[in-house]
Amino acid sequence: MAPHMAEWDEKEIFPVETLRKAAQLGFGGIYVKPDVGGSGLSRLDTSIIFEALSTGCTSTTAYISIHNMCAWMIDTFGSEEQRHRFCPSLCSMEKLASYCLTEPGSGSDAASLLTSARRKGDAYVLNGSKAFISGGGDTDVYVVMCRTGGPGPKGISCLVLEKGTPGLSFGKKERKVGWNSQPTRAVIFEDCVVPVANRLGAEGQGFGIAMKGLNGGRINIASCSLGAAHASVLLAQEHLTVRKQFGEPLTSNQYLQFRLAEMATHLVAARLMVRNAAQALQEGREDAVALCSMAKLFATDECFAICNQALQMHGGYGYLKDYAVQQFLRDIRVHQILEGTNEVMRMIVARSLLQE
Amino acid sequence: MAPHMAEWDEKEIFPVETLRKAAQLGFGGIYVKPDVGGSGLSRLDTSIIFEALSTGCTSTTAYISIHNMCAWMIDTFGSEEQRHRFCPSLCSMEKLASYCLTEPGSGSDAASLLTSARRKGDAYVLNGSKAFISGGGDTDVYVVMCRTGGPGPKGISCLVLEKGTPGLSFGKKERKVGWNSQPTRAVIFEDCVVPVANRLGAEGQGFGIAMKGLNGGRINIASCSLGAAHASVLLAQEHLTVRKQFGEPLTSNQYLQFRLAEMATHLVAARLMVRNAAQALQEGREDAVALCSMAKLFATDECFAICNQALQMHGGYGYLKDYAVQQFLRDIRVHQILEGTNEVMRMIVARSLLQE
Amino acid sequence: MAPHMAEWDEKEIFPVETLRKAAQLGFGGIYVKPDVGGSGLSRLDTSIIFEALSTGCTSTTAYISIHNMCAWMIDTFGSEEQRHRFCPSLCSMEKLASYCLTEPGSGSDAASLLTSARRKGDAYVLNGSKAFISGGGDTDVYVVMCRTGGPGPKGISCLVLEKGTPGLSFGKKERKVGWNSQPTRAVIFEDCVVPVANRLGAEGQGFGIAMKGLNGGRINIASCSLGAAHASVLLAQEHLTVRKQFGEPLTSNQYLQFRLAEMATHLVAARLMVRNAAQALQEGREDAVALCSMAKLFATDECFAICNQALQMHGGYGYLKDYAVQQFLRDIRVHQILEGTNEVMRMIVARSLLQE
Amino acid sequence: MAPHMAEWDEKEIFPVETLRKAAQLGFGGIYVKPDVGGSGLSRLDTSIIFEALSTGCTSTTAYISIHNMCAWMIDTFGSEEQRHRFCPSLCSMEKLASYCLTEPGSGSDAASLLTSARRKGDAYVLNGSKAFISGGGDTDVYVVMCRTGGPGPKGISCLVLEKGTPGLSFGKKERKVGWNSQPTRAVIFEDCVVPVANRLGAEGQGFGIAMKGLNGGRINIASCSLGAAHASVLLAQEHLTVRKQFGEPLTSNQYLQFRLAEMATHLVAARLMVRNAAQALQEGREDAVALCSMAKLFATDECFAICNQALQMHGGYGYLKDYAVQQFLRDIRVHQILEGTNEVMRMIVARSLLQE
Repeated sequence: MAPHMAEWDEKEIFPVETLRKAAQLGFGGIYVKPDVGGSGLSRLDTSIIFEALSTGCTSTTAYISIHNMCAWMIDTFGSEEQRHRFCPSLCSMEKLASYCLTEPGSGSDAASLLTSARRKGDAYVLNGSKAFISGGGDTDVYVVMCRTGGPGPKGISCLVLEKGTPGLSFGKKERKVGWNSQPTRAVIFEDCVVPVANRLGAEGQGFGIAMKGLNGGRINIASCSLGAAHASVLLAQEHLTVRKQFGEPLTSNQYLQFRLAEMATHLVAARLMVRNAAQALQEGREDAVALCSMAKLFATDECFAICNQALQMHGGYGYLKDYAVQQFLRDIRVHQILEGTNEVMRMIVARSLLQE
Repeated sequence: MAPHMAEWDEKEIFPVETLRKAAQLGFGGIYVKPDVGGSGLSRLDTSIIFEALSTGCTSTTAYISIHNMCAWMIDTFGSEEQRHRFCPSLCSMEKLASYCLTEPGSGSDAASLLTSARRKGDAYVLNGSKAFISGGGDTDVYVVMCRTGGPGPKGISCLVLEKGTPGLSFGKKERKVGWNSQPTRAVIFEDCVVPVANRLGAEGQGFGIAMKGLNGGRINIASCSLGAAHASVLLAQEHLTVRKQFGEPLTSNQYLQFRLAEMATHLVAARLMVRNAAQALQEGREDAVALCSMAKLFATDECFAICNQALQMHGGYGYLKDYAVQQFLRDIRVHQILEGTNEVMRMIVARSLLQE
Repeated sequence: MAPHMAEWDEKEIFPVETLRKAAQLGFGGIYVKPDVGGSGLSRLDTSIIFEALSTGCTSTTAYISIHNMCAWMIDTFGSEEQRHRFCPSLCSMEKLASYCLTEPGSGSDAASLLTSARRKGDAYVLNGSKAFISGGGDTDVYVVMCRTGGPGPKGISCLVLEKGTPGLSFGKKERKVGWNSQPTRAVIFEDCVVPVANRLGAEGQGFGIAMKGLNGGRINIASCSLGAAHASVLLAQEHLTVRKQFGEPLTSNQYLQFRLAEMATHLVAARLMVRNAAQALQEGREDAVALCSMAKLFATDECFAICNQALQMHGGYGYLKDYAVQQFLRDIRVHQILEGTNEVMRMIVARSLLQE
Repeated sequence: MAPHMAEWDEKEIFPVETLRKAAQLGFGGIYVKPDVGGSGLSRLDTSIIFEALSTGCTSTTAYISIHNMCAWMIDTFGSEEQRHRFCPSLCSMEKLASYCLTEPGSGSDAASLLTSARRKGDAYVLNGSKAFISGGGDTDVYVVMCRTGGPGPKGISCLVLEKGTPGLSFGKKERKVGWNSQPTRAVIFEDCVVPVANRLGAEGQGFGIAMKGLNGGRINIASCSLGAAHASVLLAQEHLTVRKQFGEPLTSNQYLQFRLAEMATHLVAARLMVRNAAQALQEGREDAVALCSMAKLFATDECFAICNQALQMHGGYGYLKDYAVQQFLRDIRVHQILEGTNEVMRMIVARSLLQE
């Protein structure tokens, strides 16, 4: 993807063909079970794959990670019928998925969502809207958290909606600082009829399903940050080696050497946090939720700082769109915000500490 | 400028008409002497003005600050004839100026520049190229540091070149992370004939003139960072006040309150650093160079951190181009790099400490 | 004081004779009015004096600053009779003062204090105890905040109590990380009879008086941090100049040069914050309370970081008690905690921002 | 050890009996081979053990870690005869060891050491002095790096010297910020005669042996930092839970909750860095040296910050010697300095990056 990342960013291209090629390598359902087309790999494998892909294009990889999260949710919480109906075309990325939780009025407080699904015979009638939906408008399968019951998390269910459903429409494409190779739009539901057969799990289980998806999602997005930071360290190191000032390559500056050492050190720490959380999640350890939150908080913060320092090491060149480091920086900035802001990560970790 | 900053950024418009309106308010030659059209204000006044303008559009204000630096250089180091020839149209911004020091091979090590000016009768023949020139291609007056003598700073002179000079050409417009309301291009000299009468100061004084310009330039660019940070704090505060989560405005979160307090505290510190340096420069104090470097280092670093935190406080909205905070962040990122990188600032400060 | 600071620390000596010599120079009542023996200087003068003294011994200077705060409270809120009764011997430091606000159960939440003063004829009967009292047990005049009315700040009054009052006793001398040249003890009141004539201001005004004292106290303690940091930078610079490794003085290491530059830069910023707050307080500006809190937060945090980095620059020597830098570090650690913790400073600043 | 750590600190007691009890549990030669009395455990086990012990008393554990490093050096680089002569009494801690590398004039530049060992028949005559020797004067076995050949690392050999050797003397006991349960003294050699049979490895291998010892030493000392930080987080958490202000336990403050979450997150990251380096060293991986340096840099810096924040969370109590948190802070401050300063760690990491 690396040769295209600048173009996809500049022209805001959603590289669907490239996604499908990635799916041929098994990246459409990395931790989805093989009987429905998934690769059946572990969370740790997944983290390593997303880190590697992200060095090529962080924004595109981040979308793939969201798609994988959706596929996993259907694979894990769906019935056999649902698994076989949806997963194969998701794993091949013939169909692309979007995760629909956030609403204009409910971000960090996701459990207060207002999108309502009223039961009417064999179907739900869906009304409301979702904000900041990755892939929104260009994807085929929408995994929607909506209210089928009373207020709070217990009243939330999870429905799968397909593009083309009457009443489903989209907001304008958002213009963003980065993540430009994936479209972001509001998703609007006006009397959308969704068969009850498209509900994942029981009524009231939607919030739990959404949160479980996010545990993995947080590792994945943190892995994307790792890739961006790793690529940026390499770019910085190369620039420092090639660029000369005062008759010497920049690498001869002790200050820059030491900063580079700090960047590498923090990158290793971030990577260990992510890998460790991935393993904990895989093993179903009790502290997995806290470790995933810690990993997301730590890795996305540290990797942003690393990319930012790598840009600085490029001098004026770092500010030019001809150099990739600035795109890595722009792309990962949002990782500190989405799939639970890093403030929410602190909240989750604190809660876990104080309940002990 | 505030209503236009997003459009100028998106469409990469250099708002020349707006610049001229600003010049009517006296902002074309703020610290240029009044007899040639300047406003005759102090460095402290200048800092206050640039901070205020920068809340409207940082990128545009930053260009104005560079233009002012050039006008001041001609006013201060030029002959009476030169002052009267160039300054009036610069102060009115009928003509716009560019500062040409950096070269592709000499950034932090500015004194190693290669652009050569060979004396030929009453003129110099200029060959070489300059990189990262703000306004380059769209401006009228180029203040060029070039080599008229041997290697090192003592061999550098300062020539004023006008657009239209045969042999003067420009590179492609750079695509940048921010600073999009001002064009950046390479400036190329191929046998450009420049009259000796266009030389500021004596032969060999060019580097000194360039550095003296930069002392003020650093205060100015730091002032632009202050404006961006101040605007961002206000935007964040407004967002936190209006946006509700968990049934309360975000301002009810103690963590966000405290972070806001830290941002305001660091902004005040940054502002005091800049004001103090401006006063030292105005008074010609011996420690002015070190204080200007400290102010540039401190203010541009802290203000970037403030804008970045302000973006975080916006949540997902902060990542959208519809919200100004991300533009402030993108625009001031380069302030840590140009007019001497913040690494060079550390070098200057350290040298001053260790020579004491 | 510099030659004695290590000994006073090690032997925990409260250098009363040195204090009295300082008082002869006018440092016993720096911002107390001259008619009662004070020096009548401004807050800005005071800050400069405490910074300078603190380079000699931070702990001793910090006590002097507390004594000055008490003297100022009596000078400002006392009647003419009280001013003339207490201030002259305080200004000469014939008598030493202690500020008694904090209680075992009320630190940051000072307004919840429990020490009660019941009116009985011409006197109050005082019961309760105070914690962490600087000078406690060795000083002569106790300025005590106590409850004469209902709960909350409005029920608090300010009494002046003299040593020797029956029922007044002291806890054991606390063993501390630093601040060892001043004793810290609990102060215990058991049916202490205090004449009504010893009440500063009206009943219920005590909390306001205490807070007004602290505004200046915060500038003063921040000034003490400045002195410690300034001395530490000089010590580090000297060590780096003298100490050789790899055949060169340590100053030839670019990384250390740049860190030194950062330390100096942050010290200048801290100093400007303190001076600016001092001036605001002197002028009675509306934002003075917020600026004093900002100055205390910023300066005490930054100066601790500076001293800590200066210690690091000393290598193993920095850890030895033969070298002063470690004492500066130990002494100023508590400045981030007392006279309102830096968390309380953030609270005050945030409140001021959000009320705007 | 926990019940004694305050007393050992205050009275500067080297708890030899306690050390021997620890040795009965196998802690005198944790990664020494069993045939000479060692426990034969891995580096990872060792790290876990030192972390756990360090929660009880960091200073004492740090000494144990140095003793273990010495025992391992003899076990690994000694002949069979040397192993059997020295290791059993070291593993039982009947005899205690000191590592003697640093000299007054050579710290970070260890390879420039001057202590000379001239060969004279079957013995070396040792002259020179060592600085900052942990255990110095109170220990029995001194593992001394000294110059038997030309300048630089290749001229250094490693001799084992026993207490009681004529000409061996010690400087005064250093007074330190922490690490008070272990004595630190200069070690002075005046014509000390050391049998050639006491040389570890061949002539000229001493520097390599010293550095290999330090790789493990760095993991160990970093593990001691982990223990101190872990204990401090628990102390802070308990204080926040018990201490009430504004009618609520301090844990109800969101800012403190979030800081606690950050502390826990950074502690986990530090621990993973140390564990990962331990494993790399155990496996003899090529990147083990860089990973050990990264682990030492990261863990000792982060753990100091964690302890410092934990102290802050204690408010005024954190500054009192009755509370353990301040001792953890004082004890681990030196971990950023010794066994290679953290500046030297950056140098090692940078070198490894740039040689790649």
